[in-house]
Amino acid sequence: MPIAIDAMGGDFAPRVPILGAIKAVNENGLHVILVGDEKKIQQELSSCKFNHKKVDIVHAEQIVEMDESIVQALKNKKQSSMRIAYNLHKQKDVSGVVSAGHSGAMLAIGKFVLKTIHGIDRPCISALLPSIKGKVLLLDSGANMDCSPYHLLQFAILGDVYTQHILSVPNPKIGLLNIGTESGKGNELAKQTYSLLKKSTSLNFQGNIEGKEFFLGNFDVVLTDGFPGNIFLKSVQGAANFVSDILKEEIKKSWLAKIGALFMIPAIKNLKKKIDYSEYGGAPLLGLRGVGVVCHGNSNPAAIQFGLNFANWAAKANIVPRVEEKISSNQELLDSLKCE
Amino acid sequence: MPIAIDAMGGDFAPRVPILGAIKAVNENGLHVILVGDEKKIQQELSSCKFNHKKVDIVHAEQIVEMDESIVQALKNKKQSSMRIAYNLHKQKDVSGVVSAGHSGAMLAIGKFVLKTIHGIDRPCISALLPSIKGKVLLLDSGANMDCSPYHLLQFAILGDVYTQHILSVPNPKIGLLNIGTESGKGNELAKQTYSLLKKSTSLNFQGNIEGKEFFLGNFDVVLTDGFPGNIFLKSVQGAANFVSDILKEEIKKSWLAKIGALFMIPAIKNLKKKIDYSEYGGAPLLGLRGVGVVCHGNSNPAAIQFGLNFANWAAKANIVPRVEEKISSNQELLDSLKCE
Repeated sequence: MPIAIDAMGGDFAPRVPILGAIKAVNENGLHVILVGDEKKIQQELSSCKFNHKKVDIVHAEQIVEMDESIVQALKNKKQSSMRIAYNLHKQKDVSGVVSAGHSGAMLAIGKFVLKTIHGIDRPCISALLPSIKGKVLLLDSGANMDCSPYHLLQFAILGDVYTQHILSVPNPKIGLLNIGTESGKGNELAKQTYSLLKKSTSLNFQGNIEGKEFFLGNFDVVLTDGFPGNIFLKSVQGAANFVSDILKEEIKKSWLAKIGALFMIPAIKNLKKKIDYSEYGGAPLLGLRGVGVVCHGNSNPAAIQFGLNFANWAAKANIVPRVEEKISSNQELLDSLKCE
Repeated sequence: MPIAIDAMGGDFAPRVPILGAIKAVNENGLHVILVGDEKKIQQELSSCKFNHKKVDIVHAEQIVEMDESIVQALKNKKQSSMRIAYNLHKQKDVSGVVSAGHSGAMLAIGKFVLKTIHGIDRPCISALLPSIKGKVLLLDSGANMDCSPYHLLQFAILGDVYTQHILSVPNPKIGLLNIGTESGKGNELAKQTYSLLKKSTSLNFQGNIEGKEFFLGNFDVVLTDGFPGNIFLKSVQGAANFVSDILKEEIKKSWLAKIGALFMIPAIKNLKKKIDYSEYGGAPLLGLRGVGVVCHGNSNPAAIQFGLNFANWAAKANIVPRVEEKISSNQELLDSLKCE
């Protein structure tokens, strides 16, 4: 079954989503449906070479803008490329939806059209990040504010199933983002969530993890409320930019350093590749009754291609019944919180 | 008046606190009181050259351990170097206290011995961080969990006064750490705090700031609850280590890159200097009726020296009445919250 790509989403739409989709068609054999302004899409496609059987277009009149309120997007953009892509998914014409557009709207429209998996109250946005050892899934990375331990237990279940069945990590190690590693550390949410997760017999909860240890890769899934989760994500970005800006400035000051930097170009390229957004910028939406993947607004075609492949793996992984099964094995714990 | 240094605090005590104190005596003309095990202190001092009139020792039997619970430290460590240093401050024998020991205990013992400034409910730990343009004060950086807007308004007042009178920044620009820059973004705490700060006429509140923009230096003071504040601080550290670890690994793989790295040593040294803990690791405790500064546990002597100088500036800045004045100019706002 094809994957739908929101051709109008992202900072460089429709060009980059289309180029990314064509890469996924040509290099990975995917079948895609480009959803958006048909005329503009045709125009972009005219300069591309691809198997025409593997690319379809579905026209959409409207676009969800990046700064649009989610309520407005839900109410007034029923003909948007994002909404129509989800409708195709609902009708089983595609097996997943990918967009580099408004991530909050992607989640909200996805929730509205597809609904959530039975037992999941709040679907969430995760972020797949690099580490010394491999990949780490952070969730929630910014969609859900003021979560309760009840929600974090649901995130743990989602993270566990996705990591196991899409990223093929057996028995994923789950950690709780906190200000210290000892039990009893953190705010009320962290303390209560820690005690709760310790009680689960079907989740491999390993305890607290501090931000400074995130990239060591000792955990496969890191849980957090969306507020600190998003602060984490953006701080890391800010710190990396800061170090690189200062280093560039220092290199500019000395011709010796300039020569040194020239020698180091391949090493720096490898570094960039290892922490590249194109492989790690994809943010699967977890908890929907279907497959939604958000790419960063300033994604390049490779990032879109990765998002499409990711959606394709997710569609094949048969996630919904697996999550439902895990929910029922934690039902007693979840019910104990509902009663409070 | 001298400054007291907890000679037993930190990962390399008593050696590093003593070496840092001697640097502050020799290079900045400070007068210090070393508080801790007299015999060990005398032993370390025997290899140092300094003006003996500027260095005193006060013996302390006990040490607050790094992993000790704060309650235990308060209850059972009445003869600790930290507690005795604060007692000296209370008796007006010193004008401030510096320690590289247990930061939570430094705050709690400081609060117990010195009390807080009138109108301040929760003193906090701040962190002075570098930016492209200068320095940024982050508060709270990890001492206070589950804050209310009422506490964050108090932090804003503390940050404003300290930045203005210790760091000499006129009319400091205050920002709220959040997940987006628009008003209405964030969790309940962020939304309510934003509205509250907008109403203050005596604080230069400029709005929300995202973690990725922290290091651009467009704000002088950044406010946050201690949970995301600490996540921010440690994530930045984790990200910087990650980038540097991967780069080192890449450099090791190629002899060309190794040569390049050699050429770049001065530039890298300058980079390190710019983001050096020795200048930015000092964390003033704000809101106490006195001066307390925490240095990082793995501080070097230069970081201790900076902490002592910072304490000396703070002592001269006459902070307590200035904070009280700012509290009273925001009294109506604070009272409006108390009533809720």
